[in-house]
Amino acid sequence: MSRPSPHHVAPDPESLRARIERASAVAAESGTDALLISPGADLRYLLGVAGGSYERLTTLIVPAGDAAPSLVLPKLEHAAYGEVPADELGLKVVTWRDGEDPYQLVADLVRLSAEPGRVAVSDAMTARHVLALRDAIPDAEQVLAGTVLRSLRMRKDQAEVDALRAAAEAIDRVHARVPGMLRAGRTEAEVAADLEAAIIEEGHTGAEFIIVGSGPNGASPHHEVSDRTIERGDVVVVDIGGPIASGYYSDCTRTYAVGEPREPDVRSAYGVLQQAQEAAVAAVRPGVAAQDIDAAARQPIAEAGYGDQFIHRTGHGIGLDVHEEPFVMAGNELLLEPGVTFSVEPGIYHNGRWGARIEDIVVVTSDGVESLNKRPRDLLVVGE
Amino acid sequence: MSRPSPHHVAPDPESLRARIERASAVAAESGTDALLISPGADLRYLLGVAGGSYERLTTLIVPAGDAAPSLVLPKLEHAAYGEVPADELGLKVVTWRDGEDPYQLVADLVRLSAEPGRVAVSDAMTARHVLALRDAIPDAEQVLAGTVLRSLRMRKDQAEVDALRAAAEAIDRVHARVPGMLRAGRTEAEVAADLEAAIIEEGHTGAEFIIVGSGPNGASPHHEVSDRTIERGDVVVVDIGGPIASGYYSDCTRTYAVGEPREPDVRSAYGVLQQAQEAAVAAVRPGVAAQDIDAAARQPIAEAGYGDQFIHRTGHGIGLDVHEEPFVMAGNELLLEPGVTFSVEPGIYHNGRWGARIEDIVVVTSDGVESLNKRPRDLLVVGE
Repeated sequence: MSRPSPHHVAPDPESLRARIERASAVAAESGTDALLISPGADLRYLLGVAGGSYERLTTLIVPAGDAAPSLVLPKLEHAAYGEVPADELGLKVVTWRDGEDPYQLVADLVRLSAEPGRVAVSDAMTARHVLALRDAIPDAEQVLAGTVLRSLRMRKDQAEVDALRAAAEAIDRVHARVPGMLRAGRTEAEVAADLEAAIIEEGHTGAEFIIVGSGPNGASPHHEVSDRTIERGDVVVVDIGGPIASGYYSDCTRTYAVGEPREPDVRSAYGVLQQAQEAAVAAVRPGVAAQDIDAAARQPIAEAGYGDQFIHRTGHGIGLDVHEEPFVMAGNELLLEPGVTFSVEPGIYHNGRWGARIEDIVVVTSDGVESLNKRPRDLLVVGE
Repeated sequence: MSRPSPHHVAPDPESLRARIERASAVAAESGTDALLISPGADLRYLLGVAGGSYERLTTLIVPAGDAAPSLVLPKLEHAAYGEVPADELGLKVVTWRDGEDPYQLVADLVRLSAEPGRVAVSDAMTARHVLALRDAIPDAEQVLAGTVLRSLRMRKDQAEVDALRAAAEAIDRVHARVPGMLRAGRTEAEVAADLEAAIIEEGHTGAEFIIVGSGPNGASPHHEVSDRTIERGDVVVVDIGGPIASGYYSDCTRTYAVGEPREPDVRSAYGVLQQAQEAAVAAVRPGVAAQDIDAAARQPIAEAGYGDQFIHRTGHGIGLDVHEEPFVMAGNELLLEPGVTFSVEPGIYHNGRWGARIEDIVVVTSDGVESLNKRPRDLLVVGE
């Protein structure tokens, strides 16, 4: 494909080696004998590359403790992993051919410290591989690798925060161009086509998601795009993002009005939403629980009587996955630490009429918070 | 996104109802209490739509026997499933909100006929959901839904064959344009950019994969695209495809030479490859085993002394997934039936020098085979 090759963006071997060693140590602490990581964000985090996920098994084996990691992969994928610094990582590469049983290869490489043992599979591994590995390693209980890797991947190092900042700046540049795209008489799909081009032009390798929710469509948080023609007086939710070459994601929502809003309650409700989003961001600092950020966003909205119209959690972590830990919601007692990055995106949705959402990506700093998205958060009136 | 809405392409409710009933019947025959189907090709086959797969659980529950199916999904995804003909399908729709436990909702809806029971999860379901469902339904063994759905999805009805034919015609039109793109002095990436545009222009909704393997890169079957500059005398493998609006895929490979091939053995080896591909296609008819098609491709290549250079299986099924059952390889004793569709794509790979592959999608007819791709299969010399 026309995406940049992995070697343009991979972390240096030293960083990868340190990540694998920490993963191995955390696995040991949690009583997990081995991590089995298939292609996806986890693999990219640990090896610097992420091939596609196919029906043929590719998996990185990270044993707990000091044993060397292995990479089991189909022979015909071998070249795609040519950029992996196998020697520097002490990585044993084992290829298999069609007709061989790759699950047995993995079973032979996993040593269980007790019976039953415990192996962790990556959260994104598909059932096809999960159940075949269950059968090949019957003496091990399967758990999710995410519970082991979460503590590593959640706390971004400086290079990762810089990558997320670059992604945020790229999507901010796209939002700055929205007033030139959004006007009465155009369809959501036409605006989305312009957004898609702008997302690429401003430095993303793909337009992962484009929501243009105009009028009543804005009241459906996961509405994407339709052929609805935007009308004067519409409120329009624009939620866009994608990965940049390093693999890190942008994700930013702004709400626009095409001329003065038709619905009478827009101005007052939007004011409440903006206040809620600002309060939630302001509450972010080390030692605060994720659920407290959710509560900080929810309280002003509920007090204004819109509690039932805020129908989703306040945010999600972001990094090599567009949605990852931590999830900012009631019940998540996780305490924030410096380097943790997530979205703060409360919304108010009036079924059948209009919706609004404001979303920034923030990073927890040593003593507070930095919002990586910088665009104004007011209801921006366009098409005048 | 700018993809067409699901309602443009969904099968009629009667077809969907028949598919769900057959899935339910096959589940019952195999002693499976329920199928749990998350977003992906299986869901699209049964409901006519496939939303994205997110960390929030969406699953269709198809009970064995006569009980009604249910769809469990996050409340904020509800609108995206608005085109599902729930009433005609007798489908019970159950939504959940952040903070609720969707796995318990599923457990409450699944009735086990015995202890232990058996539930099937879709092959594409991620480990996150697979293990959470395992814990929520501890009295059931998990198996793959693919083993139940394979017999349905493998045998395409006329509308599905027509969709695959339309996809094949679209990618044939792209290959017809390759001579205008491929010449010495251009990089693989430049050719790939032209191919990407042509794939969309000729009627696909996305360019799912683009392989331009020039010179030594052609010897790596899953090489995609690099910045290598194509040279006069190079042999170039072009393997391209993607979905059309109905969700069905194209996938076609042709091998080109940029001027007369530099390597001396190209003409003779290519002749063997072409003969092997034609022999394998000619062997396709109802009642023949999938492995016999693989053998038919492999035998002439081995006899000519290139056996070790043909390092992958002969083909894969294709439909709503680009790779699906049946896999055309040694050990697959499945007997072909009318309506089964798959690729026939032998290759010869000379490490470090050049590679060649010829790939067509074929459909098993009542008494033989039809190749859906029609472009000439000779080594096409371009850039003269």
